[in-house]
Amino acid sequence: MENKEKTTIVLFSGELDKAIAAFIIANGAAAYDHEVTIFFTFWGLNTLRKDEPVQVKKGWLENMFAKMMPRGANKLGLSKMHFAGMGPKMIKHVMKKHNALTLPQLIELAQEQGVKLVACTMTMDLLGLQKEELLDGIEYAGVAAYLGDAADAKVNLFI
Amino acid sequence: MENKEKTTIVLFSGELDKAIAAFIIANGAAAYDHEVTIFFTFWGLNTLRKDEPVQVKKGWLENMFAKMMPRGANKLGLSKMHFAGMGPKMIKHVMKKHNALTLPQLIELAQEQGVKLVACTMTMDLLGLQKEELLDGIEYAGVAAYLGDAADAKVNLFI
Amino acid sequence: MENKEKTTIVLFSGELDKAIAAFIIANGAAAYDHEVTIFFTFWGLNTLRKDEPVQVKKGWLENMFAKMMPRGANKLGLSKMHFAGMGPKMIKHVMKKHNALTLPQLIELAQEQGVKLVACTMTMDLLGLQKEELLDGIEYAGVAAYLGDAADAKVNLFI
Repeated sequence: MENKEKTTIVLFSGELDKAIAAFIIANGAAAYDHEVTIFFTFWGLNTLRKDEPVQVKKGWLENMFAKMMPRGANKLGLSKMHFAGMGPKMIKHVMKKHNALTLPQLIELAQEQGVKLVACTMTMDLLGLQKEELLDGIEYAGVAAYLGDAADAKVNLFI
Repeated sequence: MENKEKTTIVLFSGELDKAIAAFIIANGAAAYDHEVTIFFTFWGLNTLRKDEPVQVKKGWLENMFAKMMPRGANKLGLSKMHFAGMGPKMIKHVMKKHNALTLPQLIELAQEQGVKLVACTMTMDLLGLQKEELLDGIEYAGVAAYLGDAADAKVNLFI
Repeated sequence: MENKEKTTIVLFSGELDKAIAAFIIANGAAAYDHEVTIFFTFWGLNTLRKDEPVQVKKGWLENMFAKMMPRGANKLGLSKMHFAGMGPKMIKHVMKKHNALTLPQLIELAQEQGVKLVACTMTMDLLGLQKEELLDGIEYAGVAAYLGDAADAKVNLFI
């Protein structure tokens, strides 16, 4: 029967620390057997970008967005103390020291646990991001699908 | 009978991208026949300011806040890639290209759909904003009213 | 019987304005007899640091974090209009003028009202913060405890 607890997270922000927080909560909820959805919108979509450049046809403006935005989980900056990239290095260093999972590992774990990763198609259009540029195994939907999930969920966060 | 689903959003942030996200979610929920409230507090209040300057009596500090903060939905900056105003222009450009509604249009649509727009009176006092400076057709309340709505709602977001 | 309404807030951000918003909502909910938990993680932990320096043994990196991050509720910056510290001074000035509670007073009130203040032990480890450096009378827990509270709560916010 369909009586699992549900948790949804909108990941709007494109920063390493916020993405880590989102995935730690999502993986925790999945471990408790919640049905978890992360809905990636605006800058949050950058978390899902593939590491390597992908050849796709884009307009001038879309190309500019693509160049200016961080390509994937490994390249996100921090919301605080970014210090021209030193902050993210420090955070990654302490996370390694404490054997904490990296963001790419947290994403992998989420996929293994069945966390639904959904890219917001409206923002993909706006920012000119194409499916080929995003991680495999994710879903694509709009705000209506998010609201459908959220209305059934106990925990709904906007990060 | 009172059995509509409820959704509340606290709009704390005063940035264009976050305000757009808030109104897209709010309008989506209203389209699903949810009763939706957006509670504007702190910098989020700037979204509700009228475009044109309004003559009201203010103290020196309140005047300074009024000058430093963006006047209305058209003047908000971006949370990322602001680039001295180029970012918001780019976003507005791509939104126009994709026939996406502008923030002022999203606000109008919300009002047409009966989304309750509530200005936080406590922060209005702090920042020295007066009713004459804010859009017509909005409501005024404090945190108690927000909590009353939120306790009945399924989806509560802080943006 | 256990039938109190529950409210949880994740305070991820380390800024004065966001911390004030979190505590105003938390104190409001507590006044309505909700059971309220604030879960402090990442930069939000700085809100709980004691004002005075505390002698604890730390590694080099942990010392650097400790030095770079604001020490306590009185030293937080603003998310907007920080202006090298002038913004926080202005906000504190208008709050005093309007007899609004300061952040340290809001924290005290929260503790008096029984709001549960929980420091995220995982982030404490990462940032090298130790119990001696944080306010007395708080609790320590991980994401599992937060999720347990959130799954029972009506209002869950991420700030």
